[in-house]
Amino acid sequence: MTQVVLAIDLGGTSADFAFIDFAGEILYKENIPSTDFDTANSFVQLTKKRAEKAIATKKLDINVRAIGIGAPNGNYYRGTIEFAPNLNWKGIIPIADYFKMAFGGTPCFLTNDANAAAIGEGMFGNAQNVKDFIMITLGTGVGSGIVINNELIYGNDGFAGELGHVIVKDDGRKCGCGRNGCLETYASVTGIKRTIIKLLMDNKFESELKGVSFEQLSGKMIEQAALNGDALALEAYNYTGNILGKALANFVAFSSPNLIVLFGGLAQSGDLILNPTKAAMENNLLKIYNGKVPIILSGLKGNNAAILGAAALAWKEMGVKKMAV
Amino acid sequence: MTQVVLAIDLGGTSADFAFIDFAGEILYKENIPSTDFDTANSFVQLTKKRAEKAIATKKLDINVRAIGIGAPNGNYYRGTIEFAPNLNWKGIIPIADYFKMAFGGTPCFLTNDANAAAIGEGMFGNAQNVKDFIMITLGTGVGSGIVINNELIYGNDGFAGELGHVIVKDDGRKCGCGRNGCLETYASVTGIKRTIIKLLMDNKFESELKGVSFEQLSGKMIEQAALNGDALALEAYNYTGNILGKALANFVAFSSPNLIVLFGGLAQSGDLILNPTKAAMENNLLKIYNGKVPIILSGLKGNNAAILGAAALAWKEMGVKKMAV
Repeated sequence: MTQVVLAIDLGGTSADFAFIDFAGEILYKENIPSTDFDTANSFVQLTKKRAEKAIATKKLDINVRAIGIGAPNGNYYRGTIEFAPNLNWKGIIPIADYFKMAFGGTPCFLTNDANAAAIGEGMFGNAQNVKDFIMITLGTGVGSGIVINNELIYGNDGFAGELGHVIVKDDGRKCGCGRNGCLETYASVTGIKRTIIKLLMDNKFESELKGVSFEQLSGKMIEQAALNGDALALEAYNYTGNILGKALANFVAFSSPNLIVLFGGLAQSGDLILNPTKAAMENNLLKIYNGKVPIILSGLKGNNAAILGAAALAWKEMGVKKMAV
Repeated sequence: MTQVVLAIDLGGTSADFAFIDFAGEILYKENIPSTDFDTANSFVQLTKKRAEKAIATKKLDINVRAIGIGAPNGNYYRGTIEFAPNLNWKGIIPIADYFKMAFGGTPCFLTNDANAAAIGEGMFGNAQNVKDFIMITLGTGVGSGIVINNELIYGNDGFAGELGHVIVKDDGRKCGCGRNGCLETYASVTGIKRTIIKLLMDNKFESELKGVSFEQLSGKMIEQAALNGDALALEAYNYTGNILGKALANFVAFSSPNLIVLFGGLAQSGDLILNPTKAAMENNLLKIYNGKVPIILSGLKGNNAAILGAAALAWKEMGVKKMAV
């Protein structure tokens, strides 16, 4: 009988659940809808039904030790999802309690998706045995998880590590949070799209992206253009990396990590974003930190990163496996 | 026999040493020079001589359990002072080892002055029983100590918490560290002096400070002018508080503290700096943090704050007293 956790990666339109062992091996994974439910509890009931069915039909010889959930606006301390704009369920949802009840008292742990990714990186990815690191998720928005002394930090109320909402420019771009100049308005996939259109308006670039609307534009298209040598796309990566690198230099002065890990859609463009980011960070670091903080890409495979993070959370909370030793 | 630690606050021109019990009671304190020594070890030997003399002449019935040192550029992990610009001793000085040897193997702990102040605040000041707080020292420069989960964070190499060197303005004021726009170029005593002169040059203020040179100008003079209703001085506090408050809003997004403590020369002007700082921080906070992070002044009395910090470090490391419970 294999010891596993039930890991859940909850997104706005669908969710993954999976049985994962302590080595990060995914024994079974399934995608289920998350939008079709009026209440969070009915989603929990479906997950339960599907999980039990999987165990029966696949003849999985497993013992589910705990449940780990990564969710947008997840609050670790309370096991709640709070005012998530992309979910159907409004207000404060005690979803960890729902899961615990549905699964006969199995311990259930929850954190937000960026924190889960950081724990996953520390347990199964490129930050294994790294005591102090910062993981930055460059997706539709920008999220972060901060590890200090082998512990993810949650802060006073569970909301530590909102580095996507550090203000990097006075009177900068309007952000979804209602303020201006947040890092995520520049260093996310949406941010680099905004940069492409802005650069097009400000300059006289000849570019294959000239005829594309903001809505049509995707991170992949920008990446492909840059790989084709498109000057506009390359400049957009430089502009983005410059802002991100400066922000990272300030983050280093806070917790003095020895590693920064980038993850998410924008990070997948690799050196295109890594190189200008590294250069800008080094140029803006206080001398004592120069050359000490590598920036690398996540070691978690794109499709499974979130679910591995949720599993890592559960294993960590059960005390079975540490993030680093 | 009273259990004490020997606390040392090492500065550029002089040092204090004191015997302090675990309640923060100062049994004896003495000021000695720190400049007149070619080597750090000769300073250590003088400290030993004076400490022994004090015990004999004052008939102190004490048992020295440990030694705690707060020093500029102090490295906690290594017990060294590293390249301190304001001290005579160049390079890397293993001063904790020197003290330990001089005092017959008594355990000796060292950290930088801003970190020591934060530990002191947590043990004896206004941050007692506060799990997550940030202490900012607004003196000649700007230092900081960051407490997360009741622990001061040191980071990978002992240099975490250099918040005075977070860059708050692109192409901002030249900083002693060689870069531009660091927080300490604005939010220190030196910073507000620069602001006074800048505002005088940019505007047509009628001010009692008009005839004062940068060199003559002091924090106290600016404070007195503001208390007299001087428009220039008041504007300088607003300008400074605005920059400091915005920076604090970004720091909150990092560690989500439930308290920020201000300390040092500029903080002593009280509401003059507190009010604009609070307003700017609240205006720039991500909504989830609004109204949750008080900014207060240090509860450590000015003259003894650094030495109490050094004592707190030693008690903490000995496991006798925790910063918070």
